[in-house]
Amino acid sequence: MIVILEPQLDGDSSQTAAVLQHLRSVAGITPKIHQVTGEQQVLTEIYLVGNTAGLDRAEIEALPGVNRVVKVSRAYAVLGRHTGDSRSYGFTYNGVTFNQDNFNLFAGLCAVDTRAHVEQMMKAVADMGLNCTRMGAYKPRTNPYSFQGHGAECLPWVFELAGKYGIKVIAMEITHDTHIAQINAALKDSGNPTGVMLQIGTRNTQNFELLKACGRQNDHPVLLKRGFGITLEESLNAAEYLASEGNRKVIFCLRGMKTNMGDPHRNFVDFSHVPVIKRMTHMPVCIDPSHSVGTRARAPDGLLDVFHATAQGIIAGANMVLIDFHPNPASALVDGPQALTMDELVHYVEDIDIARQAYLARKKRAAE
Amino acid sequence: MIVILEPQLDGDSSQTAAVLQHLRSVAGITPKIHQVTGEQQVLTEIYLVGNTAGLDRAEIEALPGVNRVVKVSRAYAVLGRHTGDSRSYGFTYNGVTFNQDNFNLFAGLCAVDTRAHVEQMMKAVADMGLNCTRMGAYKPRTNPYSFQGHGAECLPWVFELAGKYGIKVIAMEITHDTHIAQINAALKDSGNPTGVMLQIGTRNTQNFELLKACGRQNDHPVLLKRGFGITLEESLNAAEYLASEGNRKVIFCLRGMKTNMGDPHRNFVDFSHVPVIKRMTHMPVCIDPSHSVGTRARAPDGLLDVFHATAQGIIAGANMVLIDFHPNPASALVDGPQALTMDELVHYVEDIDIARQAYLARKKRAAE
Amino acid sequence: MIVILEPQLDGDSSQTAAVLQHLRSVAGITPKIHQVTGEQQVLTEIYLVGNTAGLDRAEIEALPGVNRVVKVSRAYAVLGRHTGDSRSYGFTYNGVTFNQDNFNLFAGLCAVDTRAHVEQMMKAVADMGLNCTRMGAYKPRTNPYSFQGHGAECLPWVFELAGKYGIKVIAMEITHDTHIAQINAALKDSGNPTGVMLQIGTRNTQNFELLKACGRQNDHPVLLKRGFGITLEESLNAAEYLASEGNRKVIFCLRGMKTNMGDPHRNFVDFSHVPVIKRMTHMPVCIDPSHSVGTRARAPDGLLDVFHATAQGIIAGANMVLIDFHPNPASALVDGPQALTMDELVHYVEDIDIARQAYLARKKRAAE
Amino acid sequence: MIVILEPQLDGDSSQTAAVLQHLRSVAGITPKIHQVTGEQQVLTEIYLVGNTAGLDRAEIEALPGVNRVVKVSRAYAVLGRHTGDSRSYGFTYNGVTFNQDNFNLFAGLCAVDTRAHVEQMMKAVADMGLNCTRMGAYKPRTNPYSFQGHGAECLPWVFELAGKYGIKVIAMEITHDTHIAQINAALKDSGNPTGVMLQIGTRNTQNFELLKACGRQNDHPVLLKRGFGITLEESLNAAEYLASEGNRKVIFCLRGMKTNMGDPHRNFVDFSHVPVIKRMTHMPVCIDPSHSVGTRARAPDGLLDVFHATAQGIIAGANMVLIDFHPNPASALVDGPQALTMDELVHYVEDIDIARQAYLARKKRAAE
Repeated sequence: MIVILEPQLDGDSSQTAAVLQHLRSVAGITPKIHQVTGEQQVLTEIYLVGNTAGLDRAEIEALPGVNRVVKVSRAYAVLGRHTGDSRSYGFTYNGVTFNQDNFNLFAGLCAVDTRAHVEQMMKAVADMGLNCTRMGAYKPRTNPYSFQGHGAECLPWVFELAGKYGIKVIAMEITHDTHIAQINAALKDSGNPTGVMLQIGTRNTQNFELLKACGRQNDHPVLLKRGFGITLEESLNAAEYLASEGNRKVIFCLRGMKTNMGDPHRNFVDFSHVPVIKRMTHMPVCIDPSHSVGTRARAPDGLLDVFHATAQGIIAGANMVLIDFHPNPASALVDGPQALTMDELVHYVEDIDIARQAYLARKKRAAE
Repeated sequence: MIVILEPQLDGDSSQTAAVLQHLRSVAGITPKIHQVTGEQQVLTEIYLVGNTAGLDRAEIEALPGVNRVVKVSRAYAVLGRHTGDSRSYGFTYNGVTFNQDNFNLFAGLCAVDTRAHVEQMMKAVADMGLNCTRMGAYKPRTNPYSFQGHGAECLPWVFELAGKYGIKVIAMEITHDTHIAQINAALKDSGNPTGVMLQIGTRNTQNFELLKACGRQNDHPVLLKRGFGITLEESLNAAEYLASEGNRKVIFCLRGMKTNMGDPHRNFVDFSHVPVIKRMTHMPVCIDPSHSVGTRARAPDGLLDVFHATAQGIIAGANMVLIDFHPNPASALVDGPQALTMDELVHYVEDIDIARQAYLARKKRAAE
Repeated sequence: MIVILEPQLDGDSSQTAAVLQHLRSVAGITPKIHQVTGEQQVLTEIYLVGNTAGLDRAEIEALPGVNRVVKVSRAYAVLGRHTGDSRSYGFTYNGVTFNQDNFNLFAGLCAVDTRAHVEQMMKAVADMGLNCTRMGAYKPRTNPYSFQGHGAECLPWVFELAGKYGIKVIAMEITHDTHIAQINAALKDSGNPTGVMLQIGTRNTQNFELLKACGRQNDHPVLLKRGFGITLEESLNAAEYLASEGNRKVIFCLRGMKTNMGDPHRNFVDFSHVPVIKRMTHMPVCIDPSHSVGTRARAPDGLLDVFHATAQGIIAGANMVLIDFHPNPASALVDGPQALTMDELVHYVEDIDIARQAYLARKKRAAE
Repeated sequence: MIVILEPQLDGDSSQTAAVLQHLRSVAGITPKIHQVTGEQQVLTEIYLVGNTAGLDRAEIEALPGVNRVVKVSRAYAVLGRHTGDSRSYGFTYNGVTFNQDNFNLFAGLCAVDTRAHVEQMMKAVADMGLNCTRMGAYKPRTNPYSFQGHGAECLPWVFELAGKYGIKVIAMEITHDTHIAQINAALKDSGNPTGVMLQIGTRNTQNFELLKACGRQNDHPVLLKRGFGITLEESLNAAEYLASEGNRKVIFCLRGMKTNMGDPHRNFVDFSHVPVIKRMTHMPVCIDPSHSVGTRARAPDGLLDVFHATAQGIIAGANMVLIDFHPNPASALVDGPQALTMDELVHYVEDIDIARQAYLARKKRAAE
């Protein structure tokens, strides 16, 4: 249940306090305040979490300062598309806009290794006229004895290089809430030369403590990868954890499901779910063809499977792509075998463009 | 192991007989003769099935009439792409060509119900300038008490209508070897007004007796659907059954895998495997978006998930599409809820065209 | 819907004919006659297959000769356990009884190879005081170039040896309806020295034509293995195909599900479903630990995983076990690596006995 | 690679420091010290994590203070069973011993709700002569709006009640590293009346930060549940994370895999892997039948599926059972429908005993 306050009220007003006090007195209910910044005004909404079955909607609507009460029937209260739901979609972060209509490419390194590689990657991205990248500092690895990433140490120079090449957003996986503070500190120390999109990997899709920590901050958007052993519904519930804590800047990422039915690909590519996510929620949809496909195998038509999977996601309306490149895949510390090489970047961007144009043509035709 | 005879020899020559006699004398080996019709000549090949490990290649090559012996290391001896393999690909049936480069659309009824519906469907297909369709007479159903198809009874008038509307190929599922004879009889009785592509469904992918029966005839091509509970490798081995019996006119069809990870789709759409099949074998690749997606859900961009899945298959190079239409889905006896309606056919064909053009542009760019 | 006729009526009476004529006149309905042989009398039941929604029950009950009409709400009309369902369970074939309470062990060869091995196996079984075995003559193989079984040729001497050693029932996989006639001919020619339980393998669980053929005969019971890529509900529907054609002598066999989640076992052992099958249907439940486990790996307690899996099925109430032995696994033509050796038979039988006694003790305690 | 120091050396000696200094100077290697407390002495081992391929074993063995170097070929360096590996197994915690030979039952509440229920449960456990239980204070929930557990608040009175009823070990799920400190503080404040086994749930199996935090402390043993969407190998690697940080007191828990192939059970029961875990590692194996089965369905023999699944795990050698009871399942805040009732406890314990005795008889027979 969502209690929407009168437009002039903010979270600090006395009327807001009175409404909150009333709601807190109801057993089994935890009210949470959300500020929704629109173009004209700031709206204050109170989400009621817990056993809302016994609440009297009319009684709450009668409280001074309450504009209206929205009953949420589906699980994804904040992120879901509800009948008659006219709330605004998408967001802009550090000058880059993310929504269900546009498209952003995040080409970069799976894992930060050397400064030379990071600079080479960022320069190539900038040369293509792009302003986003991916760079992994914290790497969760299946085997405890594998390389675990450079961690906080590399952040200062990674951010500095991002600023040098005009990178506006770096998608960066985190695996513990303390990483948020480390990233914030490094950004501040380096004069905020870039922005960071916090990325939660498939092994942590249901790490609810991490989700809550990312949801409690509003500085950075969050990219949540689908969990590889759970249903789509459960992964969408995980996204809702972020939003239920207050952060609506959430992007959902398809990355393949783990089952041998997907062999010889590393995972079972699930990009047919692009339109499903868009139908069920407001989230922009990202695809991660590198980890889904996991090989550099090539079809007889001369195109790598990774190119094909990318085109499949885009022609169905994907809004973002995370893709691994590496200046020297053979020396990469993580997932080298699946990385594209720098000289494949131009082709990749052009291939994406063909698929994106086809999607736009399909969408235009559908509207006729 | 494949024993390729001298070009002038056919299966009836005395040298061929002598070679066969020799090969049959080897314990644990079953030789099978294949006639390969090329543009210039007819080649006779002998496939050695069984325990070939102990065979002496030089000894066989020394037999009079043997041109050379090819050692087949991979499982898919006939259909697989082997290193240095220059055998010809694709085939033409009843005037329609099928290979890994071109494209054919099979829009039609999942199950034949009334003559009016069949005629309405075929007329619509012909009006679009198409000459293939799908029509199910034999329907395997999960529940024994569900409608099981009209069977052989409907064949005469279905074929007659196909002739009337210039349909060259009907994809038609069969579930027992006797259905082949029934189809042949009905075709003959009606003066061969059309052609039939024998279709083997996912429940029969490893029904080896049915595969052998389809493989022993060379009148009709065979469309084999991927098995929904087995690995891709096992499904490709099933296709090889057809070819090992002598029929190389085989098309492989992706139709989604059965796992709840694909929810809310009926099956987990597996069209990312289109380039994989083309890389591993010579078979043209078909996609079946109707049964993969299984719903008429629509994305906010106005396009049905079935349209999106189709576009995903085609932009990655699919060569054929099987798609369910129905004049009145609500009255359809089988799989009505997933069928497209007749007034969606034009849009569907145009949507496919956008994706196909995008694929061709991608392929052209890759060749630069 | 099941129409139960008056006890004195059989399938040939004129009243039965009149009832049938009436039912056949209803559009969309196919009536099928079943004879149910009880201890006191023979009951004739008519199963109505098809669109029964519009039938008027009272009208049918008013027909002369109709005792009562049972509305079947669940899918498994014949084999399912229905509320208030008091029909008799289990059956006796060639002197051996199969039901949900007792236990039979079928130790034998996965595939018939040499006469010596068959005789060695049957002698060992007889020496243990057992009278059932498994012997595969028709072997469906993933790879078309693998050994496919000796087929009908070996039947005469296999049956003769069975007679020599007092084997009452041989479980024998068939893959085509013609195999039934071959088996019947061989049995007749050899003077019916033994009985055959027709076994349908996991690749043919939804080969409905084969199911119907096995269901139309009432000479032999049928063992249906669970399909490895489908839901349990779909496999039970497949069993119902057998019964809907008239053969209620059906045993359901768990044999593991195909998913890499079961690694390092060959399949994911599914014997936790033993009590589920017994709850949902009347069928005796068989387990196939050989194919489920697929290895000869051994735990530190000295027991093979195959022994453990067997014990797990039995302590939960399994009624039958199919198990592969081989006098010389290294030379076995099919699935040798998973076979037990002849000198393990005594231990295996004793191990089973411990588990079976434990089950009986558990059942007794539950009834207190 | 494991560097085992001379017995007399501990972690603080100057020779140890010199060895460490040498190892730290090697690029790409992180050495970690483990103290292994045996009955006679304390052994110091140094685990080398990272790129050990280039290390010269002889050179390291030549360092003063090094006894020998063990090359670890398999992934599970610490927990795995290696050829010729004679390290000691099992551990004792707060007076209760856990190893691959004995058995402990943990019956308790899935989630702590009221003090009355906790006390009722502990009293029942104590009345049965048992001294372990399960009590969930921190509950990870799929839906963010569901009850999330009482958290740290309930710990003082839960521990106090445990002390009152002589409970020695409480299995308690944690979802964040801060929970360890909260538990330690509550234990200390209440005078350490009981012990806690830290439990990591299936959603956090690959939450490596949580694993490392649990691995870095040696106060409490850790129960790791298998991850529901990953391979067994990946879950065992997760267990190795705990050990690689220094805590060898690890128990591995099977809890079913998430796939609709397991329907109508909540998860696909995977207890056939009990002997597999014991063969591959030194860890005691726990089973969690409550979450695996997830229903209170009952077989015609009168036994609940949960009883059957438990018996299946135990007859194959399971060393521990986690099982949900509740005084009033209808009012339980988490997973009520699957809980056993208090009056089923006696029967459950007796049923377990039958299965355990059968396992011991099987083991004895195997050793003959």
